[in-house]
Order: sequence, then C-alpha cells, then structure tokens
Amino acid sequence: MDKNLVVIGGTAAGMSAAAQARRGDPSLPIIVFERTGYITYGSCGLPYYIGNVIKDVNKLITYTPEYMKKQRNIDVYILHEVVGINTQEKYVKVKNLKSGETFNQPYGQLVIATGAVSVVPKIPGIDNNGIFTLRNIEDGIKIKEFLSSKNVKHAAILGAGFIGLELAEALRNWGIDVNIFEMLPRILPQIDEELSALIEAELEKNSVKLYKNTKVVEFKPAEKGGLKIITEGNNIFDADMVIAAVGVKPNTLLAQNAKIQTGTLGGIAVDKYMRTSCPDIWAAGDCTETYNRITKKPVYVPLGTTANKQGKIAGENAAGGSVIFPGIIGTQVTKIFNTYTATTGLNEISAKDAGMLPISAKIKHVDKAGYYPGSKSIHVKIIIDKNTAKVIGAQMAGSEGVGKRIDIFATAITAGMTVYELNELDLAYAPPVSPVYDPVLIAASSGIKALEKT
Amino acid sequence: MDKNLVVIGGTAAGMSAAAQARRGDPSLPIIVFERTGYITYGSCGLPYYIGNVIKDVNKLITYTPEYMKKQRNIDVYILHEVVGINTQEKYVKVKNLKSGETFNQPYGQLVIATGAVSVVPKIPGIDNNGIFTLRNIEDGIKIKEFLSSKNVKHAAILGAGFIGLELAEALRNWGIDVNIFEMLPRILPQIDEELSALIEAELEKNSVKLYKNTKVVEFKPAEKGGLKIITEGNNIFDADMVIAAVGVKPNTLLAQNAKIQTGTLGGIAVDKYMRTSCPDIWAAGDCTETYNRITKKPVYVPLGTTANKQGKIAGENAAGGSVIFPGIIGTQVTKIFNTYTATTGLNEISAKDAGMLPISAKIKHVDKAGYYPGSKSIHVKIIIDKNTAKVIGAQMAGSEGVGKRIDIFATAITAGMTVYELNELDLAYAPPVSPVYDPVLIAASSGIKALEKT
Repeated sequence: MDKNLVVIGGTAAGMSAAAQARRGDPSLPIIVFERTGYITYGSCGLPYYIGNVIKDVNKLITYTPEYMKKQRNIDVYILHEVVGINTQEKYVKVKNLKSGETFNQPYGQLVIATGAVSVVPKIPGIDNNGIFTLRNIEDGIKIKEFLSSKNVKHAAILGAGFIGLELAEALRNWGIDVNIFEMLPRILPQIDEELSALIEAELEKNSVKLYKNTKVVEFKPAEKGGLKIITEGNNIFDADMVIAAVGVKPNTLLAQNAKIQTGTLGGIAVDKYMRTSCPDIWAAGDCTETYNRITKKPVYVPLGTTANKQGKIAGENAAGGSVIFPGIIGTQVTKIFNTYTATTGLNEISAKDAGMLPISAKIKHVDKAGYYPGSKSIHVKIIIDKNTAKVIGAQMAGSEGVGKRIDIFATAITAGMTVYELNELDLAYAPPVSPVYDPVLIAASSGIKALEKT
Repeated sequence: MDKNLVVIGGTAAGMSAAAQARRGDPSLPIIVFERTGYITYGSCGLPYYIGNVIKDVNKLITYTPEYMKKQRNIDVYILHEVVGINTQEKYVKVKNLKSGETFNQPYGQLVIATGAVSVVPKIPGIDNNGIFTLRNIEDGIKIKEFLSSKNVKHAAILGAGFIGLELAEALRNWGIDVNIFEMLPRILPQIDEELSALIEAELEKNSVKLYKNTKVVEFKPAEKGGLKIITEGNNIFDADMVIAAVGVKPNTLLAQNAKIQTGTLGGIAVDKYMRTSCPDIWAAGDCTETYNRITKKPVYVPLGTTANKQGKIAGENAAGGSVIFPGIIGTQVTKIFNTYTATTGLNEISAKDAGMLPISAKIKHVDKAGYYPGSKSIHVKIIIDKNTAKVIGAQMAGSEGVGKRIDIFATAITAGMTVYELNELDLAYAPPVSPVYDPVLIAASSGIKALEKT
C-alpha cells in the first residue's frame, strides 16, 4: 500500500492540507491534482481585480506548482481533473485535461478539497453570451476580458449577497450602470435589516439600482446586441452583461459518487478531525459543512478563513497528527463602496431558530474621538441570550473601524462572555483610534439596559 | 445631615460620577467644584490641539456648567477650589478663585476626582520662561499661545513616554526642530524593546532627535533669548521652548490632609466599589490607584477610559447603587506620526515581576490582504504564561490596523483564553480589512510554537 498523500483540489483548503502535511512529515510523498490552471489563489480578491482596484491578476496568485515543488517538495498537477475515487482499492482516477489521457493514482491518505461551485440559476436563456458566474480565477479573467473588449454600458447582477454587492462596486468602477435583481425583499440576509438597510442606502448613494422582490424569468439576446432581461411581471431591462451571484454550493459530486457521506446541508460530512465517513479520506474547505460553535448545529458558510484552517487540520491529521477543528461562529466582513459591514455569531433569526430568546440593542457612535478629524459613524447591533446574559451575536455597519471591532465581539462570544463582562473590558483608547467609550462598550451598555428592561 | 453629593473635580471621573449619580437618583442635589475654568475636556486630545490637527480648543470641551445645569440638574462651580475636607463634620472648604472668598459646603456623599498633576522635574532653572508641562486645557492653551506668538525654531521635550512622543509630533507639525531627552536607555517603557525600537525609527524618519541615557541638569536663559539646556556631561543645547513630559502623579494632597488612606503606589486607595478608607467618601480616576486584573496587584495607569468608568461606578454607588470596578489590564494605544503602537496585559518584565514565566513570540504580517492596495505591516508580540498557556499580554506597532486589533487580545486576556483558544478564533476576513490569517492569529500560531519548544 502506498504511503502517500493525495489531495484533490489546489484550493486554499487543499494547498493548506498539503503544506501542513509536509510540515508534519518531511518525507511523505504529496501529490495535488487541480482541475483549473491555478492553485491557491485569493478568490476573495476577484471582485477587486474585476473592479481594477487590483490591476494584475498575478497578484492574486500566491503560489505556483514550481514554487510548491521547489520549496515544499509537493507535486502539483494543474489542469488535472480527478474524475473518480475508488475507496476500496484506494486510488483516484485522474484525467489530464491537456492531453486527454486518464490514469489511476493510488493513495495512502486522501484529502478532498474540491471547494464550491457557483449556483447557476435555472432561468431560460442563462446560456446566452455575456452571462457569467464568478468562482475561480478563470471566471474572473473571462469577466475582465469581456469588460475590456466590449463596450459595456449596462450590467445586471443577480443576487444581493456579499459577492453580488462587491461586484456592483467593481462594475461601478468602470462607470457602468448597474442593476441588481434580488428575489428576496432584502439584501444581505446574514445581517438583520436595521443594518442591511444602511447598505441599501450606500448602494443608492453610489447609483446602483436595486430591485428587490424581483425574479428574473428569462434572458433573451437583444436585436442590437446585448441582452434583454425579463422579470416576473414582464418588466424588461437592457444589459450588455450579467453576472449571476446567487450563491455557491459544495462541490460534492466526486465524494457522492464514491458513496462518501454528505451532511444535512449538502456538504461533505466530516468529524472535528476533518475525517469523512470513509477510512483514510479527509475533506476540508468549501466542499464540507461545519459546525456553529454557539448552536453546535451544522452550518454551511464557505469562507477563505475556514477553508485555510480546515485544510491545515486535515493535512496535519492525514500526516499522522491529531488536531481538531472547533467549528465557526460565522464572522464575516465586507466593504461595499465606503461602508464596511460585518457580522459574527447569531442574528435574531438564527438565535430564535436555535431556541434562544435573543435580546438586542442598536447604537450609533463615532469610531474615533468626536473632535478628531475624520471621525466617522459606526452602527452596532448586539444580540444577547436572555437566559444566560451571554453575548451571542453582533453586527456592524459604518466606517473602516467596523473591520476589526467585529473581532472583539467574535472573541467575547467564543469565550462565552456575558454582556456584563463585555461591558467591563479595558479596550484601547486614543483620539485617533477610538472614542473614550468604544462603540463596542456603548453597545454592551445599551445591551444591558435592554436585557434588564425585559 | 445633608442628603447630597459633592464632587471634587470636574474631571472625566468627576463628571462621570455626577452624571451617573443623577441617573441613579433624579432628585439628589449634586454639586461639582472645579479648580480650573473647564470641565470634562478631552485632555487626551491636547497634543492634537497643540499640533493644529484640532484647530479649535472648544472642540475638546464636551460639556459646560450651563449644559450640566440645564440637562442634568447638576450644579457645577468652575474656578472653585476645594482646599480642605472635614471628614468628621462632613463638609468641604471651598475657595472661590475669582472672588477669593471661602465657604464651607456640607456633603452627604463625597466623590474625590482630583485627577493627576504633572511631575515637574527638580532641575535648576525649571522656572524659566518657555518651560511648560501639559496636563489640563489651560496648559494646552498656554503652549499654543506661546507657539503662535513666538518664533519657535528649536524645542525640547523631556521624557519619551506616550505624551512626550505625541508632543514631538505636534511640534514637528509647526516645522520646529525637536530634541527629546530621555534619562532611560529607551523609550516607551510600557512596551518591550523590540517594538519600541520601531517607534524610535519612526521618530528618526520624522527628523525628531532622540537623546537617550541623557539627563538634563540645568536650564539657563540664553543671551539672545530662549534657553540653554545643559545635560550631564556638559553638553549644551539651544531651545526656544521646553515641554517637560516626565509623567504624572495622583493629586492626593486634599485626601492626605484629610487622613484618607493612599496606597502603595501613592494613589488614593479604594476598594472595588471605589470607596475610600473614610465613610461616605469615594474616589475615582487619576487620583486613585487601581488593580491589574491579571496579577491582582495595585497599578497606577492614569487613563481617560479608566477614569470615566471609575467615575460611573463611584457615582452610582454614592447614589445608593452597588456596582464594582473590576480593575484594568493596562490597554493603551497611541499614534506617533504614521506608526500606531499599542499594548495590553503584561509585558515580559511585569510578567516576571508577577512571578510568571513569560514565553513570547514576535511576528510581522500585513494588515490587509497582501495584494490589496494600501496593505501595510503590523508587528505583533504575544506573551504567554508558560504554566497555564494563557495569553497574558500583547504589543503591536505598525499601521492604523493596530488600533483595534489590540482589543482582540485585551478581550482574550480578560476571558482567560489560552493561546490555543486564541488560535482557533473565527476572525473577520475580507481583502480590504485583513489577510486570510489575521496578524493576531499568526501571532497565536507563533506563540504556540514558542511555547511547545520550551
């Protein structure tokens, strides 16, 4: 039997697994197969590449196969697609996408890190030219080539989640008119409506047209070129290009074909060691589902941070280690034009779903001393479990100061702090950095009042 | 017996006490006596006022006596100095500094919030014109008037602590040559030398001359105006003005005269309810000493955040409440030119003093995704207690991103997290906000390696 490690997917999770396995075992043969032409790129940077904030796509590419071979002695094969896993005889079937030839690669340990794929909405005409999804670097290059070569004046984005909104900003950077179509009555469902409304205002301020409660039912080529977008109710919009950003789903086809168990949310099911249901097979990253540390329930929140960490755990354990992944609390942040928005822990809906009685308070406060030039507003919503007084969630929107303040909440929530303990924190103060009472503490203080009123 | 609250000092602590007592008891007569002409100003903003970052001194003044009367029904008397406390008969002796008359004001409850005073170094010639200290708003106005009316080309600062360095930046904003004289072989003793060295480099980059190991022994008026500064070894420097920023000490004269107990560090001794040794007398803010939450030992760290919080506690309790102040962990941050530096918890020296075995690691990492424009470096030092693996301190220097990242550590330290727990945190990531592995997590990971190596 081969003593080696085979990794399916040169994703962040896959490459983290390979690198960590190498640290654990300097002599283990490690082989990575990647379907696309690129490994371990910063896919979260793609909207910024499309929006010309980042000009050179190579900046998003952290490592090359050559680097991995030379520096880590890891064999990376790009444009090699794993098309099957034989869990009995312990080999993967690999197709060289350049030559077309297929071969079997035996494995000792196997890490599945196939990532996620874009959900392509089943809308008639979705296959027309000029309609894109964005998941990997090749998608990004295609979109940017289209923008550079065509005279795009009107664009449409399907979906008002984080990626959809980041793409709206990217396209506005080109001076393009942008319509966003969202089926739900609201944007950013991770965030409660008081705060997502602030982001709606930011979109409006930046001339992005948002159509909520709006279902696109058909795409048609327009006579003079471009597309017609038809929405329910038969409204017709012009667009020179469309990006569908309605979400991603775990890429589990290989795993399912190999009878590896998936979970209730559709991701590959793994234990805290990142072990799948099949011996010697591990999985990590956006193809798996994980656990929420607060509710202990399965969640599917495909994010780069989680993928990297899970990859490390899977790689270390595949190389003989015994480390665990503790789950996530769902911390997320993004910048939409000049407004940053972030969330961590549970929101009111997910807290109720978990059987808790959420008490919340919302405040607005400055991010620096009020008298210090450039001081801006931050909105904070804090969510507390009535029974335990523990902080279980927080959301923010406002200036750049949102970015790492959300992590104070993330830390407090993970530590199981009550709102009283949060209120007593000795946080940093200097006029260019924070007001005397940081917005986090103001939120804690308001949270206490809300809790004691109930 | 009077049922009222008298507050000595319109400081942040004093005004917080008054305001909180009002919240607790809407009908309690509340009287505040303030020696200077201003109350509850943002004294941490003074260096920025001097440096013209803040042009109007009124921006630093949060509230006026008129506002406090109208909005809170609190009687504030400025230019009224309390010159004695009679703890037996329960009254304070007050001098009206305008009229010169003196009167007795009975108290039911008394809060002492007399703040701190600048340490004036005992150097011959310290009384010469053009030599200043900076503590209150009137000091700030005097310094700015001097800068505005005199042709100051050369200035000297005594002391390379936070305030001394902030003042160096303020004076460089005027285009003035600045020499800093520091008796110690290093700057910023709160911060370990690996990081304070980065601030030294920032001073040099901004043409501030730093003389370490340098004791000023005399000031003399120069013949052509200005001053001669003579240092040990008889080196002579010219200066048109000097600011002594060698530290502050608790203003305890009144308390000591009234036989109210002071602590081992010279501040008024208070229990966790902010009660002094004397019945019905409370104290809060920079005139008191407090406790470090990690070592449980007394510390004197006069900061605006602590003063505000202690004032609230003292005021609430003086009005019949029963809340406690849990102590501090010494979180501090400042901006020196373009470098932010911050500290929280124990440093290596204070950890050893507390009988711990500190293990540390230092890392350098980007504050945003490396490919995102404007990404800058952050240096992080993490300090771990070898016996418990708990995080007990952290220090940072670098970009603006330092400011609130230190609070992630402050939260983790307060929660008693181990470095392993810190390493597992689900922190926010987006390219404009953080790299995939936040510098805090990189530091945790390096801390684990350092811990496991020992």
